[in-house]
Amino acid sequence: MEQLKAFELSREFLESLREAIAQEDHAYLTQSLEGVNGADIAALLDELSLEEALYVLRLQPKSSAADILIELEENAALKVAREVDPVEIAAWVEEMDSDDAVDLLNMLGSKEREDIIAHLQDKEKSANILDLLRYDEDTAGGLMAKEYIKANQNWTVVQTIEEIRRQAEKVEKIYSIYVVDNKQHLLGRVSLKKIILSASSTKISAIYEPDLISVDSHMPGEAVAEVMRKYDLESVPVVNAKNKLVGRITVDDVLDLIREQSEEDLQAMTGISDDIEESDSIFRISKARLPWLLIGVVGGLLGSQIIGFFEEGLSKYLALASFIPLVGATGGNVGIQSSSLVVQTLAAKSAFDDSPAQRFIKGFLVAVLNGVVLGGFVFMVVVFIYGFEAIFGFTVGLALFCVVLLASFMGTVTPLVLDRLGINPAIASGPFITTANDLLGLAVYFAVAMSLLNLN
Amino acid sequence: MEQLKAFELSREFLESLREAIAQEDHAYLTQSLEGVNGADIAALLDELSLEEALYVLRLQPKSSAADILIELEENAALKVAREVDPVEIAAWVEEMDSDDAVDLLNMLGSKEREDIIAHLQDKEKSANILDLLRYDEDTAGGLMAKEYIKANQNWTVVQTIEEIRRQAEKVEKIYSIYVVDNKQHLLGRVSLKKIILSASSTKISAIYEPDLISVDSHMPGEAVAEVMRKYDLESVPVVNAKNKLVGRITVDDVLDLIREQSEEDLQAMTGISDDIEESDSIFRISKARLPWLLIGVVGGLLGSQIIGFFEEGLSKYLALASFIPLVGATGGNVGIQSSSLVVQTLAAKSAFDDSPAQRFIKGFLVAVLNGVVLGGFVFMVVVFIYGFEAIFGFTVGLALFCVVLLASFMGTVTPLVLDRLGINPAIASGPFITTANDLLGLAVYFAVAMSLLNLN
Repeated sequence: MEQLKAFELSREFLESLREAIAQEDHAYLTQSLEGVNGADIAALLDELSLEEALYVLRLQPKSSAADILIELEENAALKVAREVDPVEIAAWVEEMDSDDAVDLLNMLGSKEREDIIAHLQDKEKSANILDLLRYDEDTAGGLMAKEYIKANQNWTVVQTIEEIRRQAEKVEKIYSIYVVDNKQHLLGRVSLKKIILSASSTKISAIYEPDLISVDSHMPGEAVAEVMRKYDLESVPVVNAKNKLVGRITVDDVLDLIREQSEEDLQAMTGISDDIEESDSIFRISKARLPWLLIGVVGGLLGSQIIGFFEEGLSKYLALASFIPLVGATGGNVGIQSSSLVVQTLAAKSAFDDSPAQRFIKGFLVAVLNGVVLGGFVFMVVVFIYGFEAIFGFTVGLALFCVVLLASFMGTVTPLVLDRLGINPAIASGPFITTANDLLGLAVYFAVAMSLLNLN
Repeated sequence: MEQLKAFELSREFLESLREAIAQEDHAYLTQSLEGVNGADIAALLDELSLEEALYVLRLQPKSSAADILIELEENAALKVAREVDPVEIAAWVEEMDSDDAVDLLNMLGSKEREDIIAHLQDKEKSANILDLLRYDEDTAGGLMAKEYIKANQNWTVVQTIEEIRRQAEKVEKIYSIYVVDNKQHLLGRVSLKKIILSASSTKISAIYEPDLISVDSHMPGEAVAEVMRKYDLESVPVVNAKNKLVGRITVDDVLDLIREQSEEDLQAMTGISDDIEESDSIFRISKARLPWLLIGVVGGLLGSQIIGFFEEGLSKYLALASFIPLVGATGGNVGIQSSSLVVQTLAAKSAFDDSPAQRFIKGFLVAVLNGVVLGGFVFMVVVFIYGFEAIFGFTVGLALFCVVLLASFMGTVTPLVLDRLGINPAIASGPFITTANDLLGLAVYFAVAMSLLNLN
């Protein structure tokens, strides 16, 4: 009962582990890691040197080593795979579920991948892996595993239990038993609960549920995640175009996918170009952040050209400079709001979404409403509180109104266009678009001011 | 096998449904909705008027109505609950799992809640609900359900199967059977697979796995989600401080939680103050977006005061105005990057995270590096391409360097402070902080310029 709570990782334990590795204290290492979850050991190995990590990994029983390997961060897994002999890796890969094996192999170069596959002893496993490698990583086919239990509709309960016994070692978690006809067409599912509660001689055809949600092998991973969330599924069968059962996706893979995607979206929005964490090295963090910051800086430098272009007018009416930040910030905020609303809709498409035309009209009307409120507010403050002349207040207010309309339009169109082009639309809320919006806003602001204030 | 693929919602079907409701065509309504998942019917009802929705809901068998009710959007569920008699609602609530019932009751006012609970016939269900209502909604206790199967370690397999049979109707999905001692202390788990494959007379104590991850009833929901994702769990038992089993959390509830949280984070970052969708009314969308836009505008107006304060210097050196957008945008971008890195670390705390001091030093060093690169780049462009004098290029470059340091600092500190105060740290990447960063950046820029260019 010591392992009841999640295993507590600590620096102290890490140190004692390091010491044990240095002293080659097999007994301590084996004993202290016994029963510890693969994910926890992987987190420990991430803190060790490659040599130390390999030492620990090789002390583990094959199946534990496989569990640890699939939980390692991508970089660490790659290093291990490059350092270790293909024969040794192949032995670990054989202990993995086919989907995890494919995830690992997909990280490697094609030569390393082929070397490992060539050394697989289990012919069924290697056929499964080769089959799964054909699918795009981001589709249902790329997420599914070949380990699941299926029963022919003509079997009895006792025959099905026999099949479960036969597959028991390969299929760790069963969830549902999928029911197929003689041609492997998916017919439905039967729960383990029902198997337990039915008489041994009952035919599967008499107890299976035909109302079953399945996904097509080409369905995008994001859509699979949404289906599983919406219908509260812990696993979902995958079928090919002929409705033949080809695999099973379990919810743990979908949870990982969701986490990766929300991290990707966040990184797209904040312009961090690589998968970094606070614990990475200073140079790595700096390198991941600089590209987008530089784009912003180049944008700012272009902005200085725009303002320089209007310098004569600016010199006649210096107060114009004071409202540059107002215009820029409002354009940026409106653009981010619009684009993230669109991104949210794109992520959870529904049959009852507004049509593109309706969407534009509605976005336009919201922008008009917000533009009038914000422009009006600024007019009042500039004229009645700051004491500028009415025409100047009107200029700033009108410019703001135009910027709100423009930023809304850009914020709505950009993610839709990106989505059409197959690019993650979350980028539309990122620095690149914000910068473009800033520049357009500046140009509009000065153009309005020049004509209204007769500064040409 | 018609329901194999996820049910296709369409406007045509919605129209035919509306017509059938108007004609009170029971037969068509019952037949066309038979076997359709509760989540899909809920999506349909969201498109109907309250009257129409209630008509459909009341035609459904009680258990289907319960499934639909828990899948409705919060607003729609509230409307239904207010319109329908507590006796009728209570009958639906009895068909729900205790966690879903509590989610629904938590949406209602305390009077409505008590009315419904008073009308519950099933005393066990009502005791379970009252028990669950004591927990904070955002903790493991608030997420767990009372429906699960537990077995005493002294039972045999056949006794356990008897218990499963007894609870079969109440517990829809079993996943694991939790093993307890005579005092209800959690000892471990046994899978249904193992139950099926073991002889009837085997004692549970001989086959259960003692290595089991459980969570404390006070653990925050976010942490529960992370534990389930990390350890690939489809369900997790919840224990109280004395390690007694009090409930079970299933992965479907955690998926919903993750989705809600990523939406909340996005809305915090983009400054949309209410849970809106593109399909909401223009006024509702506008109202949700305006508050944060107004804060941005007020910030911009304060910025104009800062610039106005330096107007004399600006009039002597008009080119200063050109670089206002550069300074503002860079400060904003750096601030968002820093804060979202911190937010990401806060969301997935690990024992090996850097200490706060290390974090600040590292953040400072990254900022120095990025500041030098960006400031140097700007210096070169301003002097060698735009042809300004070196002292002016140095001024803009140095100001940018200072702004990068300041924005990094603010971006790191703000989410940490918010987190300490129990506020969602994602707000730190939102408009409020961006605006504050803009203003500080402006002040720094002009202060540097005034002293370096001798403009006082």
